[in-house]
Amino acid sequence: MLADLALVGFGHVGRRFARLLDERREALARDFDLTCRVTGIATRRHGAIYNAGGVDAVGAAGLLEAGGTLAEAGAPAGVTGSHDVIVRLAESPAALRVLVETTTLDIGAAEPARSHVRIALTARCHVVTANKGPVAFAYRELSALAEGSGVRFLFEGAVMDGVPVFNLVRETMPTVRIEGFRGVVNSTTNHILTALENGEAFAPALAHMQAEGIAEADASLDVDGWDAAAKAAALANVLLDGGVTPRDVDRTGIGPDTASWAREAMTRACRVRLVASARRGSRPIVRPEELPQDDLLAGLRGMANALILDTDTLGRVVICQLDGGLTHTAYALLSDLIAIRKGCAVAAGV
Amino acid sequence: MLADLALVGFGHVGRRFARLLDERREALARDFDLTCRVTGIATRRHGAIYNAGGVDAVGAAGLLEAGGTLAEAGAPAGVTGSHDVIVRLAESPAALRVLVETTTLDIGAAEPARSHVRIALTARCHVVTANKGPVAFAYRELSALAEGSGVRFLFEGAVMDGVPVFNLVRETMPTVRIEGFRGVVNSTTNHILTALENGEAFAPALAHMQAEGIAEADASLDVDGWDAAAKAAALANVLLDGGVTPRDVDRTGIGPDTASWAREAMTRACRVRLVASARRGSRPIVRPEELPQDDLLAGLRGMANALILDTDTLGRVVICQLDGGLTHTAYALLSDLIAIRKGCAVAAGV
Repeated sequence: MLADLALVGFGHVGRRFARLLDERREALARDFDLTCRVTGIATRRHGAIYNAGGVDAVGAAGLLEAGGTLAEAGAPAGVTGSHDVIVRLAESPAALRVLVETTTLDIGAAEPARSHVRIALTARCHVVTANKGPVAFAYRELSALAEGSGVRFLFEGAVMDGVPVFNLVRETMPTVRIEGFRGVVNSTTNHILTALENGEAFAPALAHMQAEGIAEADASLDVDGWDAAAKAAALANVLLDGGVTPRDVDRTGIGPDTASWAREAMTRACRVRLVASARRGSRPIVRPEELPQDDLLAGLRGMANALILDTDTLGRVVICQLDGGLTHTAYALLSDLIAIRKGCAVAAGV
Repeated sequence: MLADLALVGFGHVGRRFARLLDERREALARDFDLTCRVTGIATRRHGAIYNAGGVDAVGAAGLLEAGGTLAEAGAPAGVTGSHDVIVRLAESPAALRVLVETTTLDIGAAEPARSHVRIALTARCHVVTANKGPVAFAYRELSALAEGSGVRFLFEGAVMDGVPVFNLVRETMPTVRIEGFRGVVNSTTNHILTALENGEAFAPALAHMQAEGIAEADASLDVDGWDAAAKAAALANVLLDGGVTPRDVDRTGIGPDTASWAREAMTRACRVRLVASARRGSRPIVRPEELPQDDLLAGLRGMANALILDTDTLGRVVICQLDGGLTHTAYALLSDLIAIRKGCAVAAGV
């Protein structure tokens, strides 16, 4: 089965996805009868290309990284931005048409990602995204739109990179009801808290994260808890039918003051962690909490993330990511793409 | 779609499964278009029944628990044991025919479970089992048999009860290669080790587990590491293409001597845990290990289990079960049943 893909957003994640797709080409064909062809790429600052016969996404990634623009990638002109690229994708005759959305999070209104997703779903294109915005701000609207169009809206990469969270619940825990969750879902703040415990001060610990490219240039997304709040909203919307946005999350971040608390907690054999939590029917919460050391979340160091799901059938089930990174997020997009392929087979078979 | 089920083994797990099936009847019909009918039940000591029109499995569970026998369940006679029940299942005209195998583990040769599974797969019946034996002793043979017959052989309940391990890898981590694993997979020994850390002696800690029905009457399965070895073999066979049996596992259990080690370890801020591990191409190992407290496995208390999967794409991914129990194991069978239903749709659709 042929899938035409439009990559909207072509930063670190989008480019890593293009390469991963190439690396796994053989496995996709062999194990899932899936052949993927990238037909369009749209970036914010480096132009857009579309070619119904396919573009060289790996070559384009190299060009951009060498300081070039998409115009040099040799594809015909005629598209000027993300909107054009999605419209052209919708005209593809391929069995599967998929928007791969990897623009960065806008915590104000999830734009332009939300519009990209809406346009694609309306045009009966499937959507996979690593952007938390659309699912955190507009899950009900977009999932209803996807259902009405007979396509999928998937976002495994929105929480804990490629480690399955949404796919875990949907694919492996059928008929199980999730009652709530607690988790450490932001790597930057966890890394900073670990550094504070080791005696570093807040500002250098944050600067270190930014220098390593782990923290956002705009640190407030991480340290003020907005990233965790977007993830908490996404989890609450999908797992608990929350109908919330990140602005509905009761949110407290971390700051220079947290350093003394983090070190004092250790003298009580406790750890301070930025915890995101929610119960069915309640407002999600993001705040630093002092946890006893036998709390699984207290044991998370550095980049590690974990989510404890409280279920009606299996008690508490925990999924953890001990390592994180670009490849993981790119893999989340790939696993969603495979879920779409498998879902097509089911839809045809039932 | 109608599924006829034969329950072979009708102890605590089998009876809890019969009730869970009844409790989830509506969700199975609504979400998966799946109607399950129990047509046969076979026990070791309380007889066997079969009725092509269906038997009252919940009623039969109540009868047995009240000290009765299956003969009183009112189904026509004509079957004398598990073999007859599977043969009758194979004659069913239902779209899905499924053996639900829940006999207890035989660590010598996995019998009679292995024969039950073999007969059913040969007769083109699907198999779901919570018994570790068949997958630990004969995964290659039985999975090849299933493939040749065009049916499924599933065993989610063999490791970590209903918390997804095999389904996690198969359904949510497509194209990912597992390179190895480390885990705490036996609840009884973890409970005993926790009790030793709290100052209890070995014998009373074990007796306590047996009184609560957590440890096997034959304690050697747990404390000598045989249960963990069977799980390690099952994991190695499925995730690492191991081709091993529990006898190939390099196995060390725990005993009265472990008490002083467990307490000394705590003075070094460490914990002793019974760890099951394997790498691709190597012999699995089960042995008590002294772990630093920042090892996630060191933090597991009481009944908690965890498995760390070492992957080529996602680094280390961890799945934990903080609570365990009968309902969890029964749910594993149900989730396998749903996987069979979903797989049928895929097979028809591709």
